Order: sequence, then structure tokens, then C-alpha cells
Amino acid sequence: MSFFDATAVDTKDMSYKAAIHEGWDVVGNANGGYLMAIGARAMAAAAELPHPVTVTAHYLSPGRPGPVSITPQIVKVGRRLTTVRATLQGPDKPLIELLGSFSDLNRIEGPVRVDASPPDLPPPEDCPLTVPNQEVGFPPAMMGRVELRLHPDDAQFLAGNPSGDPLLRGWIRLINDEPMDVFGLLLATDAFPPTIFNAKLPVAWTPTVELTAHVRGVPEPGWLRCRFSTRFISGGMMEEDGELWDSSGRLVAQSRQLALTPQG
Amino acid sequence: MSFFDATAVDTKDMSYKAAIHEGWDVVGNANGGYLMAIGARAMAAAAELPHPVTVTAHYLSPGRPGPVSITPQIVKVGRRLTTVRATLQGPDKPLIELLGSFSDLNRIEGPVRVDASPPDLPPPEDCPLTVPNQEVGFPPAMMGRVELRLHPDDAQFLAGNPSGDPLLRGWIRLINDEPMDVFGLLLATDAFPPTIFNAKLPVAWTPTVELTAHVRGVPEPGWLRCRFSTRFISGGMMEEDGELWDSSGRLVAQSRQLALTPQG
Repeated sequence: MSFFDATAVDTKDMSYKAAIHEGWDVVGNANGGYLMAIGARAMAAAAELPHPVTVTAHYLSPGRPGPVSITPQIVKVGRRLTTVRATLQGPDKPLIELLGSFSDLNRIEGPVRVDASPPDLPPPEDCPLTVPNQEVGFPPAMMGRVELRLHPDDAQFLAGNPSGDPLLRGWIRLINDEPMDVFGLLLATDAFPPTIFNAKLPVAWTPTVELTAHVRGVPEPGWLRCRFSTRFISGGMMEEDGELWDSSGRLVAQSRQLALTPQG
Repeated sequence: MSFFDATAVDTKDMSYKAAIHEGWDVVGNANGGYLMAIGARAMAAAAELPHPVTVTAHYLSPGRPGPVSITPQIVKVGRRLTTVRATLQGPDKPLIELLGSFSDLNRIEGPVRVDASPPDLPPPEDCPLTVPNQEVGFPPAMMGRVELRLHPDDAQFLAGNPSGDPLLRGWIRLINDEPMDVFGLLLATDAFPPTIFNAKLPVAWTPTVELTAHVRGVPEPGWLRCRFSTRFISGGMMEEDGELWDSSGRLVAQSRQLALTPQG
């Protein structure tokens, strides 16, 4: 099943129905970026605009395979942006709460100045495929849905040798040559292992409180180059910053999530 | 009038009433951090928790002095966090839409690892006070409410000589020795001039689409040291990342906003 089908939203009869499909999970819980993509598809449909520009999700309860519904409410229709809020509702409780602004990215223009470059990565075929490691609960089942290849310097945690630097760089694409659209970018912002796996800290699991993704461009087909890093692990929390670059070398998304860091 | 009084929320009769007070504006429009602080105070009251942990605001319409109302709705009450959404409503239209999670920061613990330091600044008395410059619309009237002192290397844009680097570092505190509480941090995330003023680009004004603030600690009394920077100006948009450090040298807040960069 394609990512497109796995995040499809049925908008008939003014209802917004979708499903959490099998396999888009991390040790049984639906991936946070996957849930955001489903919610954002419904919100974009309600806004009648093609592109999420900035979407924030607060994670309330783990998502399990099965039907979900979304209740997008238009907050404001502006000249360039339409703001929408929504709840992604499971069978018996809300799963995530969303707030986002949507637009047609092709209609927004401005000056360009970029003070950063895509991460320097060996070619995908020289980057390790993630391999199962029960101890850290990785890779999740979702690894059958996306192809993820880590920078060799950042992948040794898989063998029990974390680098000591909470940084993860690598390539990602959907399987079967499915193009990565703007909703796929939302998935990709949460598809890498947690940066803390490389931090040499007694923390195995960092539940996401909030994830905000900025879509800065429509990606060209091909692999995305990604960089996820953490600078502040403190007060029981950590941020994780993501940069996603497309095959043309352009930044197409930025993300930041706040996660809890309970002692392992 | 103190910041505390200027952001007070009347919670009598299950309504949440507040006011946008004179002087907390930038060329006539209420400061975005000030509006977020009012909204977050109402949300924290509804959650019956003292601290915003992560709050996102989408900016819909400019705020003008006068009465506002807030309608916080509890999304979920969790063990550590309570999630709340709210609209800050002006006399005739919604001003900002908010989504946040609240907690008692003193009840959350975890490991500590920080890979960053506060910005290196000359003492406040050696940092220029911002001076009026009609051309860039700065400083705003709010400068009578907070004391803001910029790093000399980043302040030359005020004299028409931008540094060329979209970076602004400096000190901030409330006037009259009012302590900066967690809601003051929300104000401070949007109180500096736009980083783009130092970028040598033909952009004079960058309206905020969305601002997300993470409160990572309760600040100690005294000056905050702040760093605001931008790495990606592209596609008609830019992000602005903020770090706020308290007088004890601890990171107390992180922020990121997405702003539009229309050609000047």
C-alpha cells in the first residue's frame, strides 16, 4: 500500500474519514509524522489549498490501526494563507490535536538567502540500512514502508556504540519509487530514530509532546537528505531539530519537536 | 503598568476577559509575544497549571488596544501535561489561534546535556540602547515597556549599516525590576527587531505567520541573554530561531517563528 493510499482522507458527505493502516508504526504505536500527514491532508482539503505551510501537532494518545475521523475547522481564510484547526479522533479518544496554515507555495515569493547546506552524506548505497535491534526497539515496522539509510558515522548506535553526539543524518525515500509529496515531508520529519540514541544517556524512549513542521518547498522526486540534531537535553525535555533537503539541493522542510526524556 | 497587569486575565464567571493595553505595540500593532502571553495566561488558568511548556500561535489579525476575550478549551488532561486550545478574540474578529501544553515544570525531571552556551555579550551598559529610526519602524513603542540592549556588532542596522548576517543578540528585561516570569519569556521570544534587518535584503517588514515557544525552565531574576538567528530565507518565508538564557546561565526558552518576507 502506498503512502498516498495509507493517508487518504474520504471527504464525502462533509465528513473526513481515514484509517491508520498496519505497518506505519514504531513498536505498535502509529508514527507521529504519519498521523500528522493524515490530519494535514484533511485540513488541506477543508482549506481547499494544496500545501501545508506550518503545522503543529500535540500528541495525546497512541494511534493504533483502525478507522479515524478528522474534524477540520477553518479558523481564518486570508489572502495568502488559510488557518485550520483539527482533532484526529480515534475510536474512543482524540489522538492528536492540530493547528496549521495552508497555502499554495507556488504563489508565495520573496528574496533568497540560505546560510546552510545539505548534510554531506556518502551515496545511499554506502550508508547502512538500519538493522533490527530489539534493545532500542529499532527499526520500527515502518522500515518496510520507507527506505532509510543512515550516515555511517551516526549509525553505530545500532550496534550498541552511540557516537556521543545526538545527531542523525541520512537519506530517506518512500518505497516503490513513490514520489515524496508535501505530506510525505511531514512523515519524514518524524521517521528517523530519536537523536538521543546517539547521546550516551540512559534514555530509551522519548515520547513526542509537540511537533511543528514548516514546509518550505515542494520536493523534487528522489531521495531526501535529512539532518536531525538536539542541543538542549534539560528539565526532563529535549528539542529535536530537523532539516530536509530535496534531490535538487533545496531545503524543503524544517521541523522541531519537543519530547519528554524520562530516565530509562 | 507592569507586564503582569498588562497581561492579566479575569477568570470570573467562567469567562476569560483581558485587554490589549497601550504601548505593547510595534508601529500600532500589538506585539505577537505580548498577545501570546495573554492567551497563554488564560490557557494556564483553564488548565490549572502554572507553566506553558510549548505554545503555538497562528497570527490572524493585528491586535489594537481594547478588550479581548479568550475561550480556552481543554483538549486533554494527562499525567504530566494538559493540552489546551484557545482563540484570542478581539471586538470584531479573532486575533490569534493558540494550541499549547501546560505543566508544572518543577515536577518534570530527566538527564541534562547541553551543547550550547549563552551568547557572549558585553555588559548591558556597554550595549547600545536602541534609538529611533523611522525608516525601519524601530524601535517600537514597546521599548518603553522592556529594556532591550543589542550587541554592538548587531546594532549598526539602526544607523543604516546592517551587518549582513541575519543575527541579533542582546539583553532584555522588564522595566522597574519586574521579575520575568514564564509568561514574560513568551513576550521576549518576539520582542527583538526582526533578524532580517541585518540581512541586507530589500525587506522591511516580516509578518509572523506562526510562533512556537518552548519554555524549558523558570527564569531566575535579572537580565535575559538572547540570540535570534535566521538561516533560511526562501520561498517567500523565513524562520527565526530564538534562545533565551537566564542570569544563572541556563536556557529557559527556545522559540521558532515562521514569517512572510514580501519584497519591500
